[in-house]
Amino acid sequence: MKKNIEFVAANGLLDRRSFLKGGAITFGSGSLGLLTASPSSATDWPNWMTKPGTGLSEYSHRSSYESHILRKTAPLLGTDGSGSSRTPIQYLQGTITPNNLHFERHHSGIPEIDPEQHKLLIHGLVKKPLIFDMEQLHRYPMISKIQFLECSGNSRPNLSKIPPKGSCGDIHGMIACSEWTGIPLNILLDEAGLEKDAKWVLAEGADAASLTRSVPLEKAMDDAILALYQNGEKIYPANGYPIRLFLPGYEGNISVKWLRQLKVTQKPMMTREETSKYTDLMPNGKSLMFTFKMGIKSVITSPSPSLKLGPLGYYEISGIAWSSNGKVKSVEVSADGGSSWAEAELSEPILSKSLTRFRIPWKRDGSPSIIMSRAIDENGEVQPSRNQLISEKGSQVSYHNNSIQAWYISSDGEVENVYV
Amino acid sequence: MKKNIEFVAANGLLDRRSFLKGGAITFGSGSLGLLTASPSSATDWPNWMTKPGTGLSEYSHRSSYESHILRKTAPLLGTDGSGSSRTPIQYLQGTITPNNLHFERHHSGIPEIDPEQHKLLIHGLVKKPLIFDMEQLHRYPMISKIQFLECSGNSRPNLSKIPPKGSCGDIHGMIACSEWTGIPLNILLDEAGLEKDAKWVLAEGADAASLTRSVPLEKAMDDAILALYQNGEKIYPANGYPIRLFLPGYEGNISVKWLRQLKVTQKPMMTREETSKYTDLMPNGKSLMFTFKMGIKSVITSPSPSLKLGPLGYYEISGIAWSSNGKVKSVEVSADGGSSWAEAELSEPILSKSLTRFRIPWKRDGSPSIIMSRAIDENGEVQPSRNQLISEKGSQVSYHNNSIQAWYISSDGEVENVYV
Repeated sequence: MKKNIEFVAANGLLDRRSFLKGGAITFGSGSLGLLTASPSSATDWPNWMTKPGTGLSEYSHRSSYESHILRKTAPLLGTDGSGSSRTPIQYLQGTITPNNLHFERHHSGIPEIDPEQHKLLIHGLVKKPLIFDMEQLHRYPMISKIQFLECSGNSRPNLSKIPPKGSCGDIHGMIACSEWTGIPLNILLDEAGLEKDAKWVLAEGADAASLTRSVPLEKAMDDAILALYQNGEKIYPANGYPIRLFLPGYEGNISVKWLRQLKVTQKPMMTREETSKYTDLMPNGKSLMFTFKMGIKSVITSPSPSLKLGPLGYYEISGIAWSSNGKVKSVEVSADGGSSWAEAELSEPILSKSLTRFRIPWKRDGSPSIIMSRAIDENGEVQPSRNQLISEKGSQVSYHNNSIQAWYISSDGEVENVYV
Repeated sequence: MKKNIEFVAANGLLDRRSFLKGGAITFGSGSLGLLTASPSSATDWPNWMTKPGTGLSEYSHRSSYESHILRKTAPLLGTDGSGSSRTPIQYLQGTITPNNLHFERHHSGIPEIDPEQHKLLIHGLVKKPLIFDMEQLHRYPMISKIQFLECSGNSRPNLSKIPPKGSCGDIHGMIACSEWTGIPLNILLDEAGLEKDAKWVLAEGADAASLTRSVPLEKAMDDAILALYQNGEKIYPANGYPIRLFLPGYEGNISVKWLRQLKVTQKPMMTREETSKYTDLMPNGKSLMFTFKMGIKSVITSPSPSLKLGPLGYYEISGIAWSSNGKVKSVEVSADGGSSWAEAELSEPILSKSLTRFRIPWKRDGSPSIIMSRAIDENGEVQPSRNQLISEKGSQVSYHNNSIQAWYISSDGEVENVYV
């Protein structure tokens, strides 16, 4: 059943099909499994087998041995009500982000909303203004989609002149993926009845920042949902409880949390969050507004900084990829700083506007390596290098950094952020 | 944009395509949205908009308004280390089950395992016995799959002579669905090297019950995984931390938690959990052993008992369906106790051995109704009625109840469990 190992790119990258049909992989002196005990050791019972364990509970928690897996918080201006906390993506696997580790970005803290008092108003250029309580909304038709949410400021640290320290999550952790369940927004807008000159929808959140964004009507009528559930249960307060506008593929800030009103308008309302913030300053001194879509992107989550590698030999290089254009078509991985590339395996199902997990086998021989990933979507968009991004958008760019991440791996297994 | 309402089965079932392309749905006197306030009310700010909210945190929690959503625990024999707790599926949406609400079934409580001390031994009829620590296992290739897990004792309450009271979760809540990530077992078995007469694999858990089950080698080499992650994060202790054998589609008990050894054998080992328990007693007094696969099944989670309905008019009938044979092909819903049926909408993606969410619009006119769902899988298997199941398997049957659930809805909106 043994297979020949096929190298597909320089510096140890292996054929992604190596394991697809089973079959052991061996490297010189032996397999990864190390025979350190005789079979009889299976009868040496560990302490926790000698007495009954913890009982049933109404609500489970993770192991205390995992309690160090936390979001890194980054409060702004000395408050803890504004700022962000980042998903520790270097510790996660698959594509679903647990709700308690989903990144946050608040502009004036998390309102503690009583759902019995919360209302959603739809008005403006509609024939029949509507106001809903949560009980009414829960009777509407719903859909479920597994889709990503990314803050437009994600990966900003990598736009600094010197590669920042910190974990993969500290740099790229404002990305997450959830199964969102809610009401297609077009049903409610149809019910309200759009006036002829309706072109935009102003969305307002019920936080103290009264966060507002202008949404193109076309998007609102396409795949926007009023999300009530995230990963099966009600959305958490940090992500918009009891109701969040969710705009698949768009920068996270426009998926307005704690949604309280939608006002249909003829023009965008030029709110703070789309003028002084969330705009891209170009080299000519002008700013791009309304860069809604998050570009094709990928990042290797393991190996990555803070996860020191052990002995030489086999490792799996693994990461996440996503695109607002639809499905990820392929992810290429390099282990030699971009000179040679090999195609990674994508985990099924590959869903539109969702995270896709990629993996490729790698034999680490101890020579210093630079590993990188580059994603391509079904629209043909290719993830740019950092140099490309900066030469196109200028050195002032601060949002929408979807450029390629490179990790340097030293002979002793330390992983470091580098620019190539 | 208004559409004509098309009834597709008796007692108010509506065309599942009613909402697919947008378009309002109205019933006589008006829409579901009730105009109870003028647009100016949007400037009446609720209390939580008048001051900054709660700050950032390293770990999020759900709203205190949702803290009543819990698992119902059912300890056995006066202990709290043995028994079950059930997923409150009547409160969930979509298909992913949050880890803290995933059902439990323990035979001697939850061991608190230190991952640095935990080992996995593979031995028996292999050329090279292997023992792994967790660090070694984490270097192996992984795959991710969204798949269901169901206890073979799920829905047992409905085999009693009188329909039990209780919520949908109390009766059917030993079902859940997660994104499982782990190592394909065939890779490790190939590495150990199977002897010619290898036919079964004995799996043992590291709990005080030392739970053991015999797994057919064919399944172990097919789609079995050694699961390390559930919904992105490490498996919780209640579900097998740090490692669980996961056998897609098989009764939950054989997906051995806290896995510590796999012993390859020629014959099944006739353990307690496959002889005195987890067997199906037939009318002729003999027992069926090794009924691994969970049958095609569905249940309406909403409306369901304990969720009282409000005013007459539009509701969405929604539930979950699954099959160990592969994908769910269709789910039919009846609102008149099984006389007429209409096809429900299935939420994409429809995945093999996974939960599939179904939904169908319903106009409740206040006449007493009996709602039911019936699933069919891609293999052509049809979910049986309760009478069919009992006539085929006998009245002693206690496991593998995949029969159709009927809910009676009274004129005033109370929902009750009934046999039809």
